[in-house]
Amino acid sequence: MSLMLQEIAEQPAALEKTIAEERAKVTRLGKFLRGRDIDLIVLVARGSSDNAALFGRYLLEITTGIPVALSAPSVHTLYGAKLNLSRALVVGVSQSGEGEDINRVLENCRASGAYTVGITNEAGSSMVSIVDETLLMHGGRERSVAATKTYTGQLLHFYMLAEALAESGVKLGYEQIPEYAARALESRSVVEGLVERYVFMENCVVVGRGLIYADAYEMALKLMETCYVVAERFSSADFLHGPLAIVERHFPIMIFAPPGVTLPGVKELLGRLRELHADTLVISTDDEATDAATRAIKMPADISETLSLIPYIIPAQLFAALLADAKGLNPDAPRSLAKVTRTL
Amino acid sequence: MSLMLQEIAEQPAALEKTIAEERAKVTRLGKFLRGRDIDLIVLVARGSSDNAALFGRYLLEITTGIPVALSAPSVHTLYGAKLNLSRALVVGVSQSGEGEDINRVLENCRASGAYTVGITNEAGSSMVSIVDETLLMHGGRERSVAATKTYTGQLLHFYMLAEALAESGVKLGYEQIPEYAARALESRSVVEGLVERYVFMENCVVVGRGLIYADAYEMALKLMETCYVVAERFSSADFLHGPLAIVERHFPIMIFAPPGVTLPGVKELLGRLRELHADTLVISTDDEATDAATRAIKMPADISETLSLIPYIIPAQLFAALLADAKGLNPDAPRSLAKVTRTL
Repeated sequence: MSLMLQEIAEQPAALEKTIAEERAKVTRLGKFLRGRDIDLIVLVARGSSDNAALFGRYLLEITTGIPVALSAPSVHTLYGAKLNLSRALVVGVSQSGEGEDINRVLENCRASGAYTVGITNEAGSSMVSIVDETLLMHGGRERSVAATKTYTGQLLHFYMLAEALAESGVKLGYEQIPEYAARALESRSVVEGLVERYVFMENCVVVGRGLIYADAYEMALKLMETCYVVAERFSSADFLHGPLAIVERHFPIMIFAPPGVTLPGVKELLGRLRELHADTLVISTDDEATDAATRAIKMPADISETLSLIPYIIPAQLFAALLADAKGLNPDAPRSLAKVTRTL
Repeated sequence: MSLMLQEIAEQPAALEKTIAEERAKVTRLGKFLRGRDIDLIVLVARGSSDNAALFGRYLLEITTGIPVALSAPSVHTLYGAKLNLSRALVVGVSQSGEGEDINRVLENCRASGAYTVGITNEAGSSMVSIVDETLLMHGGRERSVAATKTYTGQLLHFYMLAEALAESGVKLGYEQIPEYAARALESRSVVEGLVERYVFMENCVVVGRGLIYADAYEMALKLMETCYVVAERFSSADFLHGPLAIVERHFPIMIFAPPGVTLPGVKELLGRLRELHADTLVISTDDEATDAATRAIKMPADISETLSLIPYIIPAQLFAALLADAKGLNPDAPRSLAKVTRTL
């Protein structure tokens, strides 16, 4: 079995342990920050961590009302900009804690007056020595090049941070996530039955909207890294602004369709794609959505939209790992990639 | 000749007229806003306008030191979040001024205390009646579905706005852009000679970094809309975090490589792509970069990085329009698309 499949399976336990170990610290941090009149949150990340930050961007704005920006690292590292960040919270996200550009941005933001937090898997990393506070994942070292358990660990930290920063009394219910993750792993046999059909897929589009948009980015990245599929990612709204033109008969489109406010729009898109005879794979709990799709992965009905990110990415991670395997590729050793990417 | 090609050719005159008509207003607006203690700028847009906003994001942060966020419209339209925007400037960008979601976000932000500005091509549009101040483009109605002259008109407004918001004395030199655009149109014969080679290209990646990252998004969108090519877009830094794995021998990659701080990194990527035997098309003024590429479009040497966005997108617009033509497609009427996209 690949390391990637092993690490996918480790997620329920890793999430459980991270909640147990970090919850008190995050709650204290939230209380401290609520006293500081934060009026901007900036998230700094690359790769899978940047996909987790994309979720953080939506969840933090919706839950706390504080505007959130995703940092463009080159503004700091190449253009040497000095931003006014005196009322900002800056959160760096990195599995290894060794991304040089992310760390340079964090140093720069701290020097500009921001309070800085690092979310990482490595307690001894450079990031930890730079930031004011560190939030750790506790699922053990990640050995596969394709991030899985650290992506969901980062998502979990954004739930904890959002709840801690929100007005007291807001409860997101993330304590249920480890159990949801365990149930999502049961989709493995369904996914195993599906992947053969996609062995010769050369490109595809992955769609999601709102909170789950981050999972569309993450599934596309897994497909690129481990299966060498040219995988685009769009929100269902942006997709209609131009990119829809690429859809021809049989064009493969993966769609995240959790319940909630985005579902009607996603179902409308699904109807449109059906008229265009696209080939759709839908991850959803909704009967209409799964009936309208070419293929479907059905999710447990009791998972709310807000809590869908972690359970819904699990069948997508399995899909990438098992498709790589079906193509005779080793998902743990993607060509041209190393675990820590150095860019400035 | 297609409307798209006509409108590409109209750009120097359109840009000239927009500077003449709008400059005084933008300068006044900047002076007014500098007195308001703005500490956040939020940009709201979709499609090509969102690509222009991506440039605004970099330019405004670098030039003014004010942090910039790209809005996620669904946070407002679907999740009903109320953000704290009392010290924010919110800029909506829309060719038609009729994007319902963009207008809803602007209304919501204005109600939350933000000062709102609209950048649009239509003086009689709904957007104009919502915002505090309107910045108009003066190149006449855009009739091709694929935006060209409104994209560059929006870029121009970000130059004018950034200069007006910056400390007095900052001069970006955008008055030279209409002439640069006229010279960039001379690349047409080179591009005409190139497109035949790409008639059967099914997918590609477009790369840019920093300020010119926006042009990579815009070129990819034109290729999707008018040529039905599955075109990914990445910054050269993000591209190394995973997506590089999709590159195999002969994989087509378009690269924007203007002079300046991003060029060394882009050249390093180009070297890496050469080792992988990728098929690269480089738009650059740099001899080493064009020599290392499979094909190149050479740009005039005196255009600085900051001013490269508009002249560099012109050969890319020509490439999309002429490639569509070579494929027997009508670039003015992409399948499945209308000029105004309605999403909420």
